Amino acid sequence: MDEVIQKAKTAKEISYSLSDFDAGDRKKALISIADALRENVEEILAANKKDVKKSREKGVSSALIDRLHLDHSRLEDISQAVINVAELPDHLGEVKQKFTPPNELTIRETIVPLGVVSVIYEARPNVTVDITSLALKTGNAVLLRGSSSTIESNKVLVSIMQTALEKTGFPRNSVQLIESPDRTLTKSLFTAKQYIDVLIPRGGKDLIDTVVREAQIPVIETGAGNCHIYIDEHAAPELARRIIIDAKVQRPSVCNSCETILLHKKWAEANFADLLDDLSFHGVQLHGDSEAAAYSNIIQKADESDWEKEYLSLDLAVKVVASAEEAIEHIQQYSTMHSEAVITEDAKVKDIFFKKVDASTVYHNASTRFTDGFEFGFGAEVGISTQKLHARGPMGLQALTSTKYLVSGTGQTKGNLPLSGNIQK
Amino acid sequence: MDEVIQKAKTAKEISYSLSDFDAGDRKKALISIADALRENVEEILAANKKDVKKSREKGVSSALIDRLHLDHSRLEDISQAVINVAELPDHLGEVKQKFTPPNELTIRETIVPLGVVSVIYEARPNVTVDITSLALKTGNAVLLRGSSSTIESNKVLVSIMQTALEKTGFPRNSVQLIESPDRTLTKSLFTAKQYIDVLIPRGGKDLIDTVVREAQIPVIETGAGNCHIYIDEHAAPELARRIIIDAKVQRPSVCNSCETILLHKKWAEANFADLLDDLSFHGVQLHGDSEAAAYSNIIQKADESDWEKEYLSLDLAVKVVASAEEAIEHIQQYSTMHSEAVITEDAKVKDIFFKKVDASTVYHNASTRFTDGFEFGFGAEVGISTQKLHARGPMGLQALTSTKYLVSGTGQTKGNLPLSGNIQK
Repeated sequence: MDEVIQKAKTAKEISYSLSDFDAGDRKKALISIADALRENVEEILAANKKDVKKSREKGVSSALIDRLHLDHSRLEDISQAVINVAELPDHLGEVKQKFTPPNELTIRETIVPLGVVSVIYEARPNVTVDITSLALKTGNAVLLRGSSSTIESNKVLVSIMQTALEKTGFPRNSVQLIESPDRTLTKSLFTAKQYIDVLIPRGGKDLIDTVVREAQIPVIETGAGNCHIYIDEHAAPELARRIIIDAKVQRPSVCNSCETILLHKKWAEANFADLLDDLSFHGVQLHGDSEAAAYSNIIQKADESDWEKEYLSLDLAVKVVASAEEAIEHIQQYSTMHSEAVITEDAKVKDIFFKKVDASTVYHNASTRFTDGFEFGFGAEVGISTQKLHARGPMGLQALTSTKYLVSGTGQTKGNLPLSGNIQK
Repeated sequence: MDEVIQKAKTAKEISYSLSDFDAGDRKKALISIADALRENVEEILAANKKDVKKSREKGVSSALIDRLHLDHSRLEDISQAVINVAELPDHLGEVKQKFTPPNELTIRETIVPLGVVSVIYEARPNVTVDITSLALKTGNAVLLRGSSSTIESNKVLVSIMQTALEKTGFPRNSVQLIESPDRTLTKSLFTAKQYIDVLIPRGGKDLIDTVVREAQIPVIETGAGNCHIYIDEHAAPELARRIIIDAKVQRPSVCNSCETILLHKKWAEANFADLLDDLSFHGVQLHGDSEAAAYSNIIQKADESDWEKEYLSLDLAVKVVASAEEAIEHIQQYSTMHSEAVITEDAKVKDIFFKKVDASTVYHNASTRFTDGFEFGFGAEVGISTQKLHARGPMGLQALTSTKYLVSGTGQTKGNLPLSGNIQK
């Protein structure tokens, strides 16, 4: 039995015992974790230093090193985030609906944990703590598979959380880390259907694609964002420009930033020159179709790959369209169904866009950058789902729960079969 | 481009145009389908005769032939079921929740179709019509992959439905059938992620296992039922016996029938002899652990496979246990998380069972045979989900829908970045 199967089996066993704890217990456990992280800052930073050193020696990019790097301030943010999760409302055990069909059974649909939540993720060690607090809050056992580049940090973080859990009476192994760097173990993770209830990939497109392709366990896909903004003929010029600059420039590396703008021909004729000034001012590099490129020689000619790309940089594709319909067709073809926006003062165009565009979140006259669990007021974020089953869009704690029907009877049977003669006599 | 990809692509395109129809249109389309089925009974029966003849020649079992066989009465039931679906409430476009976070965006979570629903199923031609009516009612395009043994029936049924759709202004290809018997096409179906939103297998365990293992598309698993009934020390004897007989005998071939009973030692001492009479009276063959087998020489000795098996026949595994805890542990190990029941007059035992047993539907003092969309009052059944994501337990129409956030703004941006100098001047 390899490390994954061993730990997945333990997680499954523990998941059953987690139903012995109530909302108060879960809150205490999370506060205990936050306290323990604060008390062991130096140990965590020492381990993190080893990870950073190893990555430097390997010549890893500074962007990646920035992602795995921890300092006092980042650690304090991580601990505070655990406290914030601890203080969120706890809905486990609540009855979503209660009904009595003609068979006179009393049926209650109640909120229950998923069971065992496994997360496979990349360099950020904050995910280790973040996802653990969200999963424990919702009564789940957690099995983590981080990146080998953060293994020292993750080992220490998990060990500290395990000790903190034990202090509040929880099983130490309510959270476990797969430690072996052996990549073939990932295959075990993908197929451990009998022990793991859901697998969540957190990271780049390649990781997500691999998990979706290989996993036999239900996956919550937190996907890439090839987000579009359509600027309608009747878009207010300055409002449109401000939204585009915000959605592209404010934080280009995130999934809800804008990657393609679709400009109505007439709007472009009147306002593209000003918009070009804004984009140049912020160092944005444009990739345009031939009609857009005709506006300025600073616009590179776009090819098919530009419409498909999630740049995650200060690059932006631009296409001039003749109508809202053309914009919507382009979006239908290239959207990753994350976030799409229309800027217009025309309510009819807004209505068509809202109806026709198939994405987790569709905006009118706002930046796509608001697709986020915190901005939505959920107090937490499990990720942003780009699939249509289970949860769609920003996911709060509810995404880590399922339901169970509890049915109370008084001897109901479907048919009316006799017992043997000794009763019928 | 093979037949699957071609039709999946068409389905995707059509799925966008289905948003042009409203609840009234959908209702009319379904009634048109029911009418057309009734008007073309002879054509359908003629095609079905060919399928039955071919299967007979192949020496297929009579049980299987019974499943694919259609007659006037079965066809009338199928048509009536379409009318029943047509008359259910239509929730598409409804707002599930509306909220305004501090960013002052107005966020509405609305109910939308999944998009393209593909169903892969076995011999029953009623599924062809049944799932089409459910999927169209919820605004989805449908791509069907039936069994080669029912291809003639399916071709005629789909063609009749297509013509009926056209008559009410719907695209003919809102429902499509994959006609080629080529089994390698199934692989295309499993990977056509860009066109198909959800894949639902309807059939036996092998089919479901294959789909779960191979599909890269989100799957709604409608699974097998290895259902248990635990008879507690404090179970009312006759009530317990009536429930066991119902759950095992009333229709043994279905997934919510009982496959294993767990008898508390003390209850068994007082009542097993009577229960044995009841089970023998109905021709049930018992497979017992050594303690159970000691009660009668008509009980075969059970082995490991008996605890795992979904018999779907008049066989029943029986195990004597010393406590509710032992029963729950057995269930945790062997349950397929479909339906589990406890029979007891002891509220504490009921509470523990409700809390600890991890299944879609958990019963107290009732037969497991009620796990069914119609018995739950949903008016329809997409299947019974044994997974924890998206939908769990009997699935009504809601399981074929997703949600979409519609966000209305007044120019909100996440940051406050300046435009170029021509505005700041």
